[in-house]
Amino acid sequence: MAAIKCHLGDLSAYPDPASTALRQAISEFHQVSADWILPGNGSAELLTWACRDLAQLRATHVLVPAFSDYHRALTAFSAVVQVHALNVEPGLPTFQDWQPLLSGPNAGLLFNNPHNPTGGLLGREYLLACLDQFELVVVDEAFMDFLPVSDQQSLLDEVINHQNLVILRSQTKFYSLPGLRLGYAVAHPDRLARWQRWRDPWSVNALATAAGTAVLRDQAFQQRTWDWLPPARAQLFTGLQQLGLQPLPGVANYLLVAAPCSVTALQQLLMQEARILIRDCISFPELGDRYFRVAVRTLAENQQLLQALAAVLPRLPRLSGDGRT
Amino acid sequence: MAAIKCHLGDLSAYPDPASTALRQAISEFHQVSADWILPGNGSAELLTWACRDLAQLRATHVLVPAFSDYHRALTAFSAVVQVHALNVEPGLPTFQDWQPLLSGPNAGLLFNNPHNPTGGLLGREYLLACLDQFELVVVDEAFMDFLPVSDQQSLLDEVINHQNLVILRSQTKFYSLPGLRLGYAVAHPDRLARWQRWRDPWSVNALATAAGTAVLRDQAFQQRTWDWLPPARAQLFTGLQQLGLQPLPGVANYLLVAAPCSVTALQQLLMQEARILIRDCISFPELGDRYFRVAVRTLAENQQLLQALAAVLPRLPRLSGDGRT
Repeated sequence: MAAIKCHLGDLSAYPDPASTALRQAISEFHQVSADWILPGNGSAELLTWACRDLAQLRATHVLVPAFSDYHRALTAFSAVVQVHALNVEPGLPTFQDWQPLLSGPNAGLLFNNPHNPTGGLLGREYLLACLDQFELVVVDEAFMDFLPVSDQQSLLDEVINHQNLVILRSQTKFYSLPGLRLGYAVAHPDRLARWQRWRDPWSVNALATAAGTAVLRDQAFQQRTWDWLPPARAQLFTGLQQLGLQPLPGVANYLLVAAPCSVTALQQLLMQEARILIRDCISFPELGDRYFRVAVRTLAENQQLLQALAAVLPRLPRLSGDGRT
Repeated sequence: MAAIKCHLGDLSAYPDPASTALRQAISEFHQVSADWILPGNGSAELLTWACRDLAQLRATHVLVPAFSDYHRALTAFSAVVQVHALNVEPGLPTFQDWQPLLSGPNAGLLFNNPHNPTGGLLGREYLLACLDQFELVVVDEAFMDFLPVSDQQSLLDEVINHQNLVILRSQTKFYSLPGLRLGYAVAHPDRLARWQRWRDPWSVNALATAAGTAVLRDQAFQQRTWDWLPPARAQLFTGLQQLGLQPLPGVANYLLVAAPCSVTALQQLLMQEARILIRDCISFPELGDRYFRVAVRTLAENQQLLQALAAVLPRLPRLSGDGRT
């Protein structure tokens, strides 16, 4: 916020099309050459161009449930999509029974690691194996920052060895600035130069540039987040289990939870009685009305949610089946 | 700036994909239904999608010299471009000898009104005639706000009558906020819905939304700008003429000026001696080294520029020919 306020004067000039200062800061942060970095108006903007590349291939493999914007971006360029159903067995890790994907010739892979909405983390060795099989592998690491560096399964350091690898990162999730729009791609300079010619030269606004440069240097915030998240998530996870709900083990700042009741009904009751809004999963056709996703918050806020759930859950009828549509 | 500071708290949430509040404000400002308005991350982002539509046609007609980003956006989607040379005779209005463009079947037109870099304004009756001939007409009105409403030649009120008309407007030029990125398109809702499916849902950042809504209500600023610009531009125009330079008559907040010397040499000398940077026109191949573009500023700043020019011009050799490359 201090960096944003300090740079309000920058608004009277066009943003630097080369994002030189920001790329330099990201380059130092990840130890990746600045030529291999392209900032964007949120990682969603860069996803658009990544999907334009994927759409050139015979098919793009996507694991579902998936972040809904993948469908938008692939459809925008008429990509052929081949879906693979992930295991979302309540209470089990998403990638427990991971089977290597078979690609077929001239295929692409769009993969989210950590995965949204399940929170599952796939070991980098599995993705490295995909690089030999797929013509282009786009790994969306929007939530990777939530893991301490030593636990991350990022492929950032492999980009230089693989021209067919694109990493997308978000700067506004970990730093809670989604309204500002800032993400970046790490990939071969030739690919990024092509994307830069496709989009307009000023896509990253001046305040996002300022904030993006400042947050990378805020090691105290990063450490606080890594210190806060695991115990807060564990508290929420255990609390949800004790209420008879089935959270999936996750590494990000949210948990996907299977409920024994209609989530639409649960959502309405929670909103009415406690003014708490949980995110239903209706927009994920593979999940439907028996799942919801909650953000991990402070210990006190998590407790507040658990208490509210404890008050309303007994009033909802238990349903059989898994509620998928 | 007050609106931006007041909305810093919005940065912790995703922007509204429907931009409801901003579209409503623009709708009231222009008396155009909100369904016909799509805000973007600068009008340059919307130009990208307009050019994707134009690229579907057999050819897109562009008048040159033209804003360099037109070439970028048309090339991004492999559009076939047909250029028409504008009259940039020093000292003469750009559209004095305007000839209607002949389109041929299935052609598009991308037109800048007021025109950049010449500053010329084309009467709306000429563009209305183009709507009958061209399959799609995209009018970039990025500088139209600099004219008082009664003098504008905008086609905004014609969009509802012509499904083949797209208007692009910028909110950051008139309000001096280019670092914030905000523009909007006015066109048929079906076209805008298609663009919205092509791009990511959060392309307009939260602070641009806040500022864009606030500036439209700032009628005092609008009136001050309209009161300031004509006399300041006239003073600069006359002053440039008195120095032997040949400004083209223009209606925007800049003037295109023909010089009897190398503009590269003039630019260097002005920078060295007076720390003033004028914009050369090397990036417009049709203009080359004998033209520059200057912003109209306050009376005192214009005077400062004129004095600096008066000091350096006599030291530069006069060249024959028009210096075009």
